[in-house]
Amino acid sequence: MKYNFGAGPCILPQEVFKQASQAVLNFNDTGLSILEISHRTPEFEAVVDESVRLVKELLGVPEGYSVVFLQGGASLQFSMVPMNLLNSDQAAAYLDTGVWANKAVKEAKLFGNVNVVASSKAENYTYIPKDYEVPADAAYFHVTSNNTIYGTELHKFPETAVPLVCDMSSDIFSRPVNVADFGLIYAGAQKNIGPAGVTVVIVKDELLGKVDRKLPSMLDYQVQIEGGSMYNTPPVFSIYVSMLNLRWLKSKGGIAEIDKENAAKARALYEEIDRNPLFKGTCKVEDRSRMNICFVMENPEFEKPFLKFTEDLDIIGLKGHRSVGGFRASMYNALPITSVHRLIEAMQDFAEKNK
Amino acid sequence: MKYNFGAGPCILPQEVFKQASQAVLNFNDTGLSILEISHRTPEFEAVVDESVRLVKELLGVPEGYSVVFLQGGASLQFSMVPMNLLNSDQAAAYLDTGVWANKAVKEAKLFGNVNVVASSKAENYTYIPKDYEVPADAAYFHVTSNNTIYGTELHKFPETAVPLVCDMSSDIFSRPVNVADFGLIYAGAQKNIGPAGVTVVIVKDELLGKVDRKLPSMLDYQVQIEGGSMYNTPPVFSIYVSMLNLRWLKSKGGIAEIDKENAAKARALYEEIDRNPLFKGTCKVEDRSRMNICFVMENPEFEKPFLKFTEDLDIIGLKGHRSVGGFRASMYNALPITSVHRLIEAMQDFAEKNK
Repeated sequence: MKYNFGAGPCILPQEVFKQASQAVLNFNDTGLSILEISHRTPEFEAVVDESVRLVKELLGVPEGYSVVFLQGGASLQFSMVPMNLLNSDQAAAYLDTGVWANKAVKEAKLFGNVNVVASSKAENYTYIPKDYEVPADAAYFHVTSNNTIYGTELHKFPETAVPLVCDMSSDIFSRPVNVADFGLIYAGAQKNIGPAGVTVVIVKDELLGKVDRKLPSMLDYQVQIEGGSMYNTPPVFSIYVSMLNLRWLKSKGGIAEIDKENAAKARALYEEIDRNPLFKGTCKVEDRSRMNICFVMENPEFEKPFLKFTEDLDIIGLKGHRSVGGFRASMYNALPITSVHRLIEAMQDFAEKNK
Repeated sequence: MKYNFGAGPCILPQEVFKQASQAVLNFNDTGLSILEISHRTPEFEAVVDESVRLVKELLGVPEGYSVVFLQGGASLQFSMVPMNLLNSDQAAAYLDTGVWANKAVKEAKLFGNVNVVASSKAENYTYIPKDYEVPADAAYFHVTSNNTIYGTELHKFPETAVPLVCDMSSDIFSRPVNVADFGLIYAGAQKNIGPAGVTVVIVKDELLGKVDRKLPSMLDYQVQIEGGSMYNTPPVFSIYVSMLNLRWLKSKGGIAEIDKENAAKARALYEEIDRNPLFKGTCKVEDRSRMNICFVMENPEFEKPFLKFTEDLDIIGLKGHRSVGGFRASMYNALPITSVHRLIEAMQDFAEKNK
């Protein structure tokens, strides 16, 4: 048993692993592997239908929105969003809160004008800028809800007159959001949705079909929506495991319940970081992420020994991203609070040993 | 035990299913699921390295070519090929041998001029056109090596002065090809490579970097090559299972050996189709595919009863595509010859019962 604090692809519930493993041998008692069934079988169409239904139900997606499962990760969405929503003579507004937001900006520039309304880059993205204005004529305003590398999170989404587009890759399904406030939400699966290889897009239908350019079919949200996530062969297994994981979330009580657990997990670890004299957080307190908790040591010389100490306890994935250093404890939905307690205990034991 | 003749996603070797199932619980004795490991771990980097190495070794990919694993299926390649290889003032030549070739043509038109040098559409794609000329100034010539829906296959690749681009989705790794004859080869995994959700691209490096347009990073072969198939989070599980399947192919003796098996399987079934008075093939004999064997019944009224008859024997996936009708026996690498014998026996038994 490992305590997997990896930033993603990340831990999923053990029961999901068991069900997925079984389906690779025999899917739904068909006598066939989930890997050898046609995506056009009623059995797999039921998987896609249930996956879409679970996304809608768990997030409370209102009428007028479509949900599709695509390939290419959030990185392909960086291009698909402007391709589908931004005419070349228009400008889109972006909030620069980290490397991923920055990449989204870069890709959007190929399709229209980009107005970066604010950036925290000068302070290594340790906070979320809040003092900015979004031009009323922007085609949309793009934000990143959680910044995996730096450990910051938008705890309050901006109110804008223009459609809000959000990369929710690393905190979707971790807390309630009001989908009606968004024009488009996208998320790579590999944190709180399922395994790598599939991306969820939730889009307000009325925003589509308005750009002048002709779109490649695979990159056209309308084509993908009409195809019901099966314009071409979908990533069958990744969608199936996502369905299992969303079923698990529903069985736990849905987002209301996981929200409480995530709050408790984050509270416990931040309390220890703030209490334990050996450690300190790296971000502005009000912008601290509940998914990725970044911290360093007051004495950097302790960092290697502490990492070794935790690894010996089967606590893994704790090394911080090179652009921040120190440690990052990623605590997605499936990480049990017992793992957090194990880490806190390790921090205390290490402090005790190094008094 | 089912006899899975499905057109794809399709049967893979039983031992691959077993290994994949095990890795979902415990990958390489890491104590972690293959679904929860970071793609940046040495363990997964080894998987990508081995997968690339196996593609190169099994196909005999020469120096000067890169191999990458991408997302989006062949359908996204329909756009990526012209985006990367065709300037807007140039023309590319295409051979229209079926619905998929046709879709490739449609997507290419967004990026430059398209010259369809020949088409068998008027005869419902029952043969491969051979009498055509490829303009010497074409940016490339695009062909589809095997046409899943119609059951035709290019048994001899055209010799051209321009780079040959080939969609090999449904017969890659089924027979020897001389990669040096191609500028670019692409293939969705879900036939002879692995599970759906990953696409293999083999490209001659010197063809890249020559178009004028700016490319979205995710759609730029050079970016993907530089990223070593990990510009962003790759479809971890689909790559892993592809590696297992390529290992299996290598252990069987590689393409030389599977080529013989595929020949024997196809010969046996075509012989029965040609011998049994109830059945007839749908394609020109010289262009018959070894992967997808399409046939109908002399008396169409027998088709429903025959399908029912086979399904009762656990022979599945035999229904022909609606645009051809009748039956399609897909016989990819992993389909054992015993399954073919079972089908032939069923054809004979049915004929006996309906004399």
